[in-house]
Amino acid sequence: MSKLPKVTGRDMRGVMAYPPTPALPGAERVDATDTVDLAETERMVRTLIADGVDAIALNGTLGECATLTLDEWKSFAACVAETVKSVAPDFPVFIGTTTLNTRDTVSRMRYLADLGITGTLLGRPMWGFMVGPVMERFYRDVAEAVPELAIVVYDNTAAFGGVIPRSVYRTLVELPQVVAVKYAGGASVGFRYHNDMAHTGTHFPLMPIETDWLPAWEMYGEDLVGMAWSSTTACGPAPVLALRDALRGGRIDDAKWLTERLRWAHEPFLVGQDFMEFSKYNVPLEKIRVNEAGYIHVGKCRPPYTEDLVPEQHVRGTLDHIARYQQVVKEVADRLGRTHTVKE
Amino acid sequence: MSKLPKVTGRDMRGVMAYPPTPALPGAERVDATDTVDLAETERMVRTLIADGVDAIALNGTLGECATLTLDEWKSFAACVAETVKSVAPDFPVFIGTTTLNTRDTVSRMRYLADLGITGTLLGRPMWGFMVGPVMERFYRDVAEAVPELAIVVYDNTAAFGGVIPRSVYRTLVELPQVVAVKYAGGASVGFRYHNDMAHTGTHFPLMPIETDWLPAWEMYGEDLVGMAWSSTTACGPAPVLALRDALRGGRIDDAKWLTERLRWAHEPFLVGQDFMEFSKYNVPLEKIRVNEAGYIHVGKCRPPYTEDLVPEQHVRGTLDHIARYQQVVKEVADRLGRTHTVKE
Amino acid sequence: MSKLPKVTGRDMRGVMAYPPTPALPGAERVDATDTVDLAETERMVRTLIADGVDAIALNGTLGECATLTLDEWKSFAACVAETVKSVAPDFPVFIGTTTLNTRDTVSRMRYLADLGITGTLLGRPMWGFMVGPVMERFYRDVAEAVPELAIVVYDNTAAFGGVIPRSVYRTLVELPQVVAVKYAGGASVGFRYHNDMAHTGTHFPLMPIETDWLPAWEMYGEDLVGMAWSSTTACGPAPVLALRDALRGGRIDDAKWLTERLRWAHEPFLVGQDFMEFSKYNVPLEKIRVNEAGYIHVGKCRPPYTEDLVPEQHVRGTLDHIARYQQVVKEVADRLGRTHTVKE
Amino acid sequence: MSKLPKVTGRDMRGVMAYPPTPALPGAERVDATDTVDLAETERMVRTLIADGVDAIALNGTLGECATLTLDEWKSFAACVAETVKSVAPDFPVFIGTTTLNTRDTVSRMRYLADLGITGTLLGRPMWGFMVGPVMERFYRDVAEAVPELAIVVYDNTAAFGGVIPRSVYRTLVELPQVVAVKYAGGASVGFRYHNDMAHTGTHFPLMPIETDWLPAWEMYGEDLVGMAWSSTTACGPAPVLALRDALRGGRIDDAKWLTERLRWAHEPFLVGQDFMEFSKYNVPLEKIRVNEAGYIHVGKCRPPYTEDLVPEQHVRGTLDHIARYQQVVKEVADRLGRTHTVKE
Repeated sequence: MSKLPKVTGRDMRGVMAYPPTPALPGAERVDATDTVDLAETERMVRTLIADGVDAIALNGTLGECATLTLDEWKSFAACVAETVKSVAPDFPVFIGTTTLNTRDTVSRMRYLADLGITGTLLGRPMWGFMVGPVMERFYRDVAEAVPELAIVVYDNTAAFGGVIPRSVYRTLVELPQVVAVKYAGGASVGFRYHNDMAHTGTHFPLMPIETDWLPAWEMYGEDLVGMAWSSTTACGPAPVLALRDALRGGRIDDAKWLTERLRWAHEPFLVGQDFMEFSKYNVPLEKIRVNEAGYIHVGKCRPPYTEDLVPEQHVRGTLDHIARYQQVVKEVADRLGRTHTVKE
Repeated sequence: MSKLPKVTGRDMRGVMAYPPTPALPGAERVDATDTVDLAETERMVRTLIADGVDAIALNGTLGECATLTLDEWKSFAACVAETVKSVAPDFPVFIGTTTLNTRDTVSRMRYLADLGITGTLLGRPMWGFMVGPVMERFYRDVAEAVPELAIVVYDNTAAFGGVIPRSVYRTLVELPQVVAVKYAGGASVGFRYHNDMAHTGTHFPLMPIETDWLPAWEMYGEDLVGMAWSSTTACGPAPVLALRDALRGGRIDDAKWLTERLRWAHEPFLVGQDFMEFSKYNVPLEKIRVNEAGYIHVGKCRPPYTEDLVPEQHVRGTLDHIARYQQVVKEVADRLGRTHTVKE
Repeated sequence: MSKLPKVTGRDMRGVMAYPPTPALPGAERVDATDTVDLAETERMVRTLIADGVDAIALNGTLGECATLTLDEWKSFAACVAETVKSVAPDFPVFIGTTTLNTRDTVSRMRYLADLGITGTLLGRPMWGFMVGPVMERFYRDVAEAVPELAIVVYDNTAAFGGVIPRSVYRTLVELPQVVAVKYAGGASVGFRYHNDMAHTGTHFPLMPIETDWLPAWEMYGEDLVGMAWSSTTACGPAPVLALRDALRGGRIDDAKWLTERLRWAHEPFLVGQDFMEFSKYNVPLEKIRVNEAGYIHVGKCRPPYTEDLVPEQHVRGTLDHIARYQQVVKEVADRLGRTHTVKE
Repeated sequence: MSKLPKVTGRDMRGVMAYPPTPALPGAERVDATDTVDLAETERMVRTLIADGVDAIALNGTLGECATLTLDEWKSFAACVAETVKSVAPDFPVFIGTTTLNTRDTVSRMRYLADLGITGTLLGRPMWGFMVGPVMERFYRDVAEAVPELAIVVYDNTAAFGGVIPRSVYRTLVELPQVVAVKYAGGASVGFRYHNDMAHTGTHFPLMPIETDWLPAWEMYGEDLVGMAWSSTTACGPAPVLALRDALRGGRIDDAKWLTERLRWAHEPFLVGQDFMEFSKYNVPLEKIRVNEAGYIHVGKCRPPYTEDLVPEQHVRGTLDHIARYQQVVKEVADRLGRTHTVKE
C-alpha cells in the first residue's frame, strides 16, 4: 500500500511564508562553512508560526536553495524539522529540493521525508530549457520515488526560462503529492491564470502572490485559491495575515484597503517594475529588504551573489519599499489591531 | 490658443470595441485594390453603436492596420467618420495610425482630425526596438503636431518587442491628448498594473481586457478603470455589455458570473494559452473567429497574412471558443435579458 | 512570356555598398517635408560608382527605409535611377521596399521596375513575427507580381525578430528574381552559414559582411560567395575595395592584412560588441559615423530616431571607430595605393 | 608563494575532445546509483589519447555534468585521473565543476587538484541570469581558491542565458589559471570573435568549434587560435585530427577539404540549424549520435533527460549526420591515411 503525504491540495489554506535562509557573519566568504544561523532559523520558524502564518516554504530562489552546500542544507532542514516538531508538529513546511537532476532531487526529498517534513518546494532542473513532456516525467518520477512527501510546484519565468505549459497541469492533477503551485510571473490573476485553473480546479491551489490574492479570491473563492504565497511576510507578516483574515471574514473593504496598501508599499521595489532586471539581483535585494525590515536577521548573501554589486538605484528603491512597508505595518496595527513580533 | 481633443481621460467609461476591418471578396489577392467592404463597415459601426458599446477602436493589430493600403485606410476612416456623424456625432472613435515613423503617423492623424474623428489608436514604430526616451519624444511629438486629436496609446508585447516602461508614463500623463492606454500583455490586473497606475492615476484609464475588468474595477473603482477594451465584442457585444452594466449597477454576483462565463468561453482560444504563439497567427485567427460568430462579416485576411497557413489545431481551438461564446450569448440572454443584433 | 530581372545570382560579384539616405538641414523636424538631399544623393551615387563599388543597396535599416515618407522615397529612387542611367546604365542598384504588407511592397516594387532600377532590397513585414510558410508565400508573391525586378533578400535578427529558417531557402532558390541574401546576424561564416549555403549553392550568394568575407571566400570561393555587403563603404570604400581586389588577385596576405585592419577599426563600434544594444540606436549611430568620416554628408536622422538620445559612451565608441578607420584608409593608400574620393 | 597550474594558455594547442560520460545499463532509472561505466571510461580516455587528441574536457553540457550525482562525479574523476596518470601523466584533462554556487564549485575544484588533474571546464551558476561584474568575481574567487588548477572557461548561450560580455575578458586575462575559453554560440569566427580576441590576445585561445577552426587559424594563426574544441571527436577523432595536422603542416587544401567534409557531415544535425531547439534535446541527441558512431559506448541518458522524448525528426537528422560522418571517416582514411581506433 503506497504511502501518501500528510496534506492534500484541499488542505492548503491561508498564507505560505517564503523567508530567506539566515546566515552567520562571514557567510559571504568563499571559504565559509556552516554558514546557516541555526539559532535565528529556529527563532524565525517559531516566530512565523507564533505570529500566525499557515505554512512555510524554504529554499526557493529567494530562499537561497542555490547557494547552500549540501551539508548546510541538511543542517538547516534538520533544524527546521526539529523546531516545527517541538512547537506545532502538524504545521506544514516545504523545503526546496531543486537541483540539476532527478536523482539529486529524489535523494534530498528522501532526506526530508525521513525528517518528517511535510513536503518540498520544487522547481525543475534548469541547465537548459525543459520541454513539457520532460517536465511531466520529472514531476511524476519524483512523486513516485518519495510518495509520502507533498510537493509545492515552483514556477518562475526567470529561473526556469519559461512557464509550466498547460499540458503539464494535466499530469500534475493526477499526482496526489502535488498540493499547490507557486504560480509564475507577474500575471497572477489574468487570463492565463483562469485557463490553467480550469485544468486544476480544486485539486490544488495555483497560489497567487498576496497582492493579487483579493481579486483571485473574489473571482474563485476560498475553495480554489484558498492559499497565497508571500515572501514579504519575511519583513513581518501582520499586513498579509490581516488580509487573510479580512478575506476569510468577508470584510471586503478591509481586504481592498490592505491590498491597496500592500501594493503601494511595493511600488518602489524593482520586482514589480521590471521582473527580468529584478531577477539579476533578486537574492541580494531580498537580503537587503529583509534585514532592513528587522523581523528576521538573515545576514549576507553566500557567493556568488552579493549585495556589493547591486546597482545603487535598485538598493534605494528597496529601502524606500521597506520604509513604506513599515508605515503600512503601523497603519494595520492602528486600524485593525493586527501586529507581529517586533525584535528589540 | 491650442486646440484640445473633444474627450479627456476622465470621459473614458464603458466598453471600447476592437473590431477587424471588413474585407470584400478577393481581399486575399496580391493584386486586390479597394478591399474594404464599406457597406459592412457602415453596418458594423451602426450596429455596435446601436447595441450599446461606448467607444470603437479600429486598425490596431487585429484591426489590420498593417495590411491596408493608404487609400483603403482613408476610405475606411472616411466611411467610419460619416457613419458616426450620421448616427451619433459625439460617439468616440479611435482609428489606428501606427506606421514606421513619426511623420507618416502625424500625416494620418491630421487626416483623421480633419474628418472630425475623436482620436487615434497609436502604437509605436516597430522597425527595431524603441527605448523609453525615444518613446516619450515620439508621443510628445505627435500630440503636439495634432493637438485636437485624442490618443489611445496602444501597447502590445509581441508587436513592439516589450512594454511601455514606467518612466514613459510620467510623460504620457503630461499630454492632455492621451485619454487611455490599451494595456499590454496578459498581466492586466497584477503587480505591474498597479505600479503603472500609481503613475497615471485618474489622468486616463489603463484599460484591461474585459475578462480582467471585474478584479480591476473592484480594486480601483470606476474612476480609475472605468473603461475596458474588448476585441471579443466583434463576435457580438451582449455579454461584455452585460458585464459593464453589472459593474455599474453594483451587481457583483452578475459581474462574477459573466466574467467566469467569458473566461470559460476563451479557454480553447490560443491567446490565453501561449501569447507569443498566438501572435504569429493573430490576424487570421481573429478573422476566423469573427466570421464564425457571424455578428460582422469581415471576409478574408489581406496579404501576407492568411488563414490557409494557420496550424489546424489553432483553428480548431478557435472554433471551440466561438461555440462556447455562442452558448454564453444565449445564457446571457436567458438570465439577464441582454442581447445584441443577430444577423439573419 | 514572363519577364526576368536584368541580373541573376551568378552575376553578383564584388562589393555591395549600403549607404544612408542624405538628409537636408531640418530633416529632424516633425513638420519637415522633402528631406532628401537630392544633390548629395546624386553625388553619392556617382562617387561610389566612380570609386569602384560593384552594386549599391539603399533603404534597408541603416538606409532609413522606415523614416522616409512615400513621396520622399519616390524622389530618392527617381534621383538614383536618373543618376545611374546617366553614368552607368547597367550598374546594379537595389532599393528598399520593405513595408508592413505585401501590396504596399508590390506597389513600390512596380514603381522601381518602371524606373528601370535593377532590383529591390527586401525584408519582410515586421508587425508581429513571421513564420516560415508565410515568409515563403510573401517572397513568392512579390516575385511573381513584379517579375522583372531582382530581389536582394534582407535578413536581420533585430529588425525581424529571428532569422530566415532553412526551409525558406528551398523556396528562395526556386525564384529567379532572388539574386542575393544579405545574411543575418554576426555569424556570417560559421556553422549555420555553411548549412544554409548547402541549400542555396551557386543560385545566389549569401553575402557576408566585408570583415567576414575572407574566411568565406577561402572556404567556398568566388562562385559561392563572390559578393559581400558593406555599410562601412559609406565612410569611404577604399579599404573594402582593396580587400575585394586582393581576394580576386589571390593576394591572400593582403586580404588577411586588410581584414585584420578592418576588424581592428570596428573594435570600438557597438555593433560587434552587443548587436541587440546596437539595434536600439543603429540609425543614429550610422549617421554619426558616416558624417564623421566625411565621405558622404548624410545630415540628421528623421524622426522618431535621433542622435540626441544615444547614450554618450555609444557615441564615443563610434567616433573612436572612425578615427581608426581613417587611419586604415591612410595605411591602405600607403601600402596598396588604393584611395577613394576625398571631399574637400 | 602561490601555486600555479601546470599549463598556461600558451600551451593550449591542438584538439580538445569533449566526450560524454559512459553509462552502465539502467542509468536511465530514477533509482540508479553508480551509473558511470568506469571500464568504458578508462578505455575511452586511453583510446582518445592513443588516437592522438591533445586534451580532453569532460562534464560540460554534453558531458552530462548536470545529471551525475556527486559520488558518481568523484568516481568518474578519480578513474580519469588514474587512467591519465598511468598512460600519459602530463596529458591535459579538464573536468567540469559547474554547480549552482561558488563554494560547491571550489570544493569540486579542490577535489580535482588533489587528484592531480590539470584543470576544470567551468561554466557559471545558472539559477538566474548572471551579470558581468558577478561573473568577474566568480571566476576570480574560484581561481584564487584553487590556484593550482587550470580553468577552461565554458560559455554557452543556451545554458547560461547569454554570452560572456567583453568587459569580463579583461578580468579573465589577469588570471593565470584561465588557459582557454570554449567560445559560445555559432558565431565562432565572426565580428564579435575578433573583438573579444582583441582583448585576450595570446593569453589564452578563444577556442572555435573544429568546423570553424580553419578560417580562424588562417586569420589569426596558431599563436592565437592554436586549439579548437570538438565534441564530434567522441564519434571517432580521425577527421578532426587530420584537420589539425593539415593546419599545422600548412596543407591548406587538405584543411579546406576536411572542413568542407566535416561541415557537410553536420548538415542534418539539429545543432547547426536551430541552436535553441537543439538545446532542448542536446544531451539525448549527443548520446544518440555517439552510440550510433560506435567509437565509445556511452549508454543512456540519466534522468531527467531521456532519448524517449526527443521528436522523431530530430533523431532522424542525427542518424543521417552519423551516416555522413562515417563516410567522411572512410574518405579521410582513403585520402590521408588517418584513422582512429575501431571497436570490433
